[in-house]
Amino acid sequence: MGPQNKKIPVAVLGATGAVGQRFVQLLAAHPWFSISALAASQRNQGKKYGEACGWHLNGSMPDVVCDMLIAPVEPGLDARIVFSALPADVARSVEPAFAAAGYIVCSNSSAFRLDADVPVIIPEVNADHVSLFKRQHEERGWQGLLVTSPNCTTSGIAIPLKPLDVALGLKKVMAVSMQAVSGAGYPGLSYLDIQDNVIPFINGEEEKMERESRALLGKVVGKKRVDADFAFSAQANRVPVSEGHTICLSLELEQKATAVEVVDLLKDFRGPLHSPALPSMPLFPIQVRDEVDRPQPRKDRAAGDGMQISVGRVRSCPVLDIRMVSVVHNTLRGAASGAILNAELLVAEGYVS
Amino acid sequence: MGPQNKKIPVAVLGATGAVGQRFVQLLAAHPWFSISALAASQRNQGKKYGEACGWHLNGSMPDVVCDMLIAPVEPGLDARIVFSALPADVARSVEPAFAAAGYIVCSNSSAFRLDADVPVIIPEVNADHVSLFKRQHEERGWQGLLVTSPNCTTSGIAIPLKPLDVALGLKKVMAVSMQAVSGAGYPGLSYLDIQDNVIPFINGEEEKMERESRALLGKVVGKKRVDADFAFSAQANRVPVSEGHTICLSLELEQKATAVEVVDLLKDFRGPLHSPALPSMPLFPIQVRDEVDRPQPRKDRAAGDGMQISVGRVRSCPVLDIRMVSVVHNTLRGAASGAILNAELLVAEGYVS
Amino acid sequence: MGPQNKKIPVAVLGATGAVGQRFVQLLAAHPWFSISALAASQRNQGKKYGEACGWHLNGSMPDVVCDMLIAPVEPGLDARIVFSALPADVARSVEPAFAAAGYIVCSNSSAFRLDADVPVIIPEVNADHVSLFKRQHEERGWQGLLVTSPNCTTSGIAIPLKPLDVALGLKKVMAVSMQAVSGAGYPGLSYLDIQDNVIPFINGEEEKMERESRALLGKVVGKKRVDADFAFSAQANRVPVSEGHTICLSLELEQKATAVEVVDLLKDFRGPLHSPALPSMPLFPIQVRDEVDRPQPRKDRAAGDGMQISVGRVRSCPVLDIRMVSVVHNTLRGAASGAILNAELLVAEGYVS
Amino acid sequence: MGPQNKKIPVAVLGATGAVGQRFVQLLAAHPWFSISALAASQRNQGKKYGEACGWHLNGSMPDVVCDMLIAPVEPGLDARIVFSALPADVARSVEPAFAAAGYIVCSNSSAFRLDADVPVIIPEVNADHVSLFKRQHEERGWQGLLVTSPNCTTSGIAIPLKPLDVALGLKKVMAVSMQAVSGAGYPGLSYLDIQDNVIPFINGEEEKMERESRALLGKVVGKKRVDADFAFSAQANRVPVSEGHTICLSLELEQKATAVEVVDLLKDFRGPLHSPALPSMPLFPIQVRDEVDRPQPRKDRAAGDGMQISVGRVRSCPVLDIRMVSVVHNTLRGAASGAILNAELLVAEGYVS
Repeated sequence: MGPQNKKIPVAVLGATGAVGQRFVQLLAAHPWFSISALAASQRNQGKKYGEACGWHLNGSMPDVVCDMLIAPVEPGLDARIVFSALPADVARSVEPAFAAAGYIVCSNSSAFRLDADVPVIIPEVNADHVSLFKRQHEERGWQGLLVTSPNCTTSGIAIPLKPLDVALGLKKVMAVSMQAVSGAGYPGLSYLDIQDNVIPFINGEEEKMERESRALLGKVVGKKRVDADFAFSAQANRVPVSEGHTICLSLELEQKATAVEVVDLLKDFRGPLHSPALPSMPLFPIQVRDEVDRPQPRKDRAAGDGMQISVGRVRSCPVLDIRMVSVVHNTLRGAASGAILNAELLVAEGYVS
Repeated sequence: MGPQNKKIPVAVLGATGAVGQRFVQLLAAHPWFSISALAASQRNQGKKYGEACGWHLNGSMPDVVCDMLIAPVEPGLDARIVFSALPADVARSVEPAFAAAGYIVCSNSSAFRLDADVPVIIPEVNADHVSLFKRQHEERGWQGLLVTSPNCTTSGIAIPLKPLDVALGLKKVMAVSMQAVSGAGYPGLSYLDIQDNVIPFINGEEEKMERESRALLGKVVGKKRVDADFAFSAQANRVPVSEGHTICLSLELEQKATAVEVVDLLKDFRGPLHSPALPSMPLFPIQVRDEVDRPQPRKDRAAGDGMQISVGRVRSCPVLDIRMVSVVHNTLRGAASGAILNAELLVAEGYVS
Repeated sequence: MGPQNKKIPVAVLGATGAVGQRFVQLLAAHPWFSISALAASQRNQGKKYGEACGWHLNGSMPDVVCDMLIAPVEPGLDARIVFSALPADVARSVEPAFAAAGYIVCSNSSAFRLDADVPVIIPEVNADHVSLFKRQHEERGWQGLLVTSPNCTTSGIAIPLKPLDVALGLKKVMAVSMQAVSGAGYPGLSYLDIQDNVIPFINGEEEKMERESRALLGKVVGKKRVDADFAFSAQANRVPVSEGHTICLSLELEQKATAVEVVDLLKDFRGPLHSPALPSMPLFPIQVRDEVDRPQPRKDRAAGDGMQISVGRVRSCPVLDIRMVSVVHNTLRGAASGAILNAELLVAEGYVS
Repeated sequence: MGPQNKKIPVAVLGATGAVGQRFVQLLAAHPWFSISALAASQRNQGKKYGEACGWHLNGSMPDVVCDMLIAPVEPGLDARIVFSALPADVARSVEPAFAAAGYIVCSNSSAFRLDADVPVIIPEVNADHVSLFKRQHEERGWQGLLVTSPNCTTSGIAIPLKPLDVALGLKKVMAVSMQAVSGAGYPGLSYLDIQDNVIPFINGEEEKMERESRALLGKVVGKKRVDADFAFSAQANRVPVSEGHTICLSLELEQKATAVEVVDLLKDFRGPLHSPALPSMPLFPIQVRDEVDRPQPRKDRAAGDGMQISVGRVRSCPVLDIRMVSVVHNTLRGAASGAILNAELLVAEGYVS
């Protein structure tokens, strides 16, 4: 098994897209996993990855994948885990097929994210939601399983909310996001639309932020996920930033607390411990910045290899109780690295035999 | 007097700076005013404006000012009205000297903005605050007078709040701003600091937004300005946009209303009527955009020659009552044009003899 | 006829695209022309323009076109002149059909731009190339005619070269362009590709710059266009600028001249005179900037309503003879306004009966 | 000595500025050097580096320097090598004082860069210019020595020119640069000046590119540096890019060669070999990109840890012989890393005892 001895073979579904390339970049250097297959849409099948795929990320494509032949997006791949970067409509038919065929499917897609028997997981927030796999197995009859990771913005909200909810209880959350362009995939937004501009709307995003945050902070009771019940108002904006979502948060708490107490809760927050440690999990999921003008997406998005949420400007709020700003790396913590961390959790918890 | 026959001579204090250049650009083409003097700091005095001043705005400096000699920033200028684009610390000593000497001082500076006897005015919002001039005259003994215009962001908040406050009553306001770089003057922010970035802090801005909004929506009772008493939480962010502040607003109202009713109130809002009309006052101070993704600063900042506030995405809020997005042109409505509109109001109301 | 009495009805082909919208914006306010039809691809036919077309330009769509129904791109439109903003492959079949049916076709497409009997014209440079219409009529048998305008970058090169070629004779030209993103149409480049970046390649652009410049500066001898024979090396780059192409030029001349003499030639350059004047033709096609750091695309692209080429930094060259920098507004002079100016020329010269 | 056993103590002069911070970032992790002192201007002296210095680079300041006290910029520092990131006017008096006092001064400043006895060195290009130290010692009487590294743009020109000059002989060079904003230091350019813009002028840059390129490709004959004598025309532009200068080059060669032959010369180029290898010297100083649209600054600047020059689009030129595009990381190869590589060369060559 991965951490112990030889590497676990993994595949990437949708390997030529924006998130797919991030998966490839990260997995090519992963200590537990090795890329055994790359799958993409029909028109690229049979081509070499290096030829089919215009590399959008900085630098060059990892050498190890250049000559891999692109496989069809269907079971039969030589892999134990598949990472899905498929669009939601394709994921809807493909991901169940893989799970049925016995693969561990770690999906970044929204297709099944809020289904009753499909956990949406951030290990530091709700690793215990793996208990839903039992219901998933019973109801779907799959040999494998399907786990999802949340929307990129939600990651930057749910992680800092978690320790505050546990210690103080959340009643109301107002979130205004300033989201990076890479959150829309590639090619995503036209330069002409977003340069020198703010677009105060992202289709479906506010609903995802509200629903997924409540799911992540919810409980599994018996076989049922019971979502948290705080009120949530999300306002999503697109800004001319390449990577890193910034979120202004204002919170009302059950139990009042000072900004200093809130900072201490954020700083002390830890994820679940495994031995060996999960390679993609930072020691502290939250980095609290003391400077008056941080966090900033360009300066802070790469904290903890893009896995730490940076939080700052924790202060009281004249309307609710506490205000703060968080920054999340949307294509790492909020997408590819988040799904890989979920895979690591499943390995550590014994789901990958 | 201006509107009737010949033009009123006006001067610009701090004429070489960012807001000063906007004043020059606008006044060079003004139907009521003509530039008779340009004043700037000592090191530029006696030089021609065209030589002392690197023109930061697009296009070229107006021909009519190129050869004007720069005067000292002190009374003695051949002008009836002076527009002040001075930094707050300089304004503190200079503006009273001009007012004492009989000039009408229309200031864009924050130096006296919240003094008890110095009105901060947006004509469409609180033209009646001119009644404070009586107290100003009594207490200061000035022959002239001093009027101020609000902070650039406040303009984008107070105008849409006004009709809602009148009709429905404001209880709470949450405002998260995404502010253009030009709001920091010239040279302002380094490209290296703000490109590909969001800076979630602007020194003193949140306090200004909170206090000035309450002042503008307040009442003058006898000789005293009584500020409005709604709770206000402001979170100010700098984004890589050249001009146009975008503000996400969430409101709690005394009297509940639907989004449709709120839109109607915004659309019907009108400023005070004078004859002839004030040249810089748009027929409708608020433009409501119906598109799902508007207003946007690049596309909407120039509405009504930069004097209209664009509002959109009016919808209910799960935490408070109503959410909306507004865009204000920060160097026109929020700075130079705003101060010029105040001067026009004073002319129309007979303060400029 | 247009300038004398009532407006000439004109249509736009490809009216929903980036250049098409520019045509609509400009023609809606044109003194000689009035929009009588808007044509676009099949999927938009029969819809209202205001519904089919997401308005990409700043501000709002002109009211007058909002309710016009989109027509098919085929002869039968109620118009005398058609402006074509079609992609080259569509233009290849459609434009001849319109010309055959008697329309005056003013094309911004590259489809026929270098055909032997289709003039590519900038009125200030080679208005006399209209003599090719005779050959066009003889060979094609069209009742109407087809005129093209050059590639957007070429406009910023051919105009400043013209007076130098006439007075001094061009031997060699080196041009390195830094081109705005809008030159690639809409949606054009992904923000993720061009932000914080330079792309040193634009497909086909260097060849167009070289060939079209020689065509524009060539002569029509009898029925044949004889291209100019100077050597031309073009290097095209895309830079993160919204509008306005900047071009660094270095020239070798037959007859040596000082930088001062070159500046005088540029400043004195005039286009052909007609009475009444062509509405889109600036009095001086070239604006020479004296500042050491001009022209700049953001500050100078709008000179002369986007129709003036701004030139600066004229100085000697250690390798060839003279260096200079030019800026051209690529979607106005280099696209829509350029084609409209051609139409005005044809009206003035009596081709539009 | 450094490579053999314990680390060599080094100091940074001008440690709080833009290049100074790059020195600190790189030296904090250097295998041969350890930071023993940080010096900066008077107003910061005695403060902790972590307090005096707003960290402009991404991420956080290295822990090891946070508590170091800032020293005065004068001899007496506990260090063997000093890296100078001083402005030219300060460097003019300070650097000789350090060299006189026995320090090895590796300067990034232009103050002495073209003095007859001060070598400007890129190890891969002209390591043999160290022979000028003999003359420097004789004429100046310094116990230490002073070596300079070239202007950031020159690095991106001289390295690809070197193998071509050796094999084919250079006659003429035309260079048009598109330079990143970080080349102007911090705070450098205002966002308002450079966003959505190109500035076709950088003060003094074109002269530096021309003169330093000839110096680097020149020979030392006896005690005299004889500069190369090719003609050089440089046109420098500032573009909205954070880091990475892009340069369009066109060359005339003594001996004609095909693009393929030129590519082979570039690919095979190697720097001088030492044992152990210099830590900052890439195995191949030039990376040739085959893609039609590379190199690009954002994607290629980090090649070889920012020390490789990326070259592409090698093709023939209709005016001269060969055209190509190069990209250099201006604050690494072109500034801090370049000076550190010079220090490594001096260690390897025995100048640092």
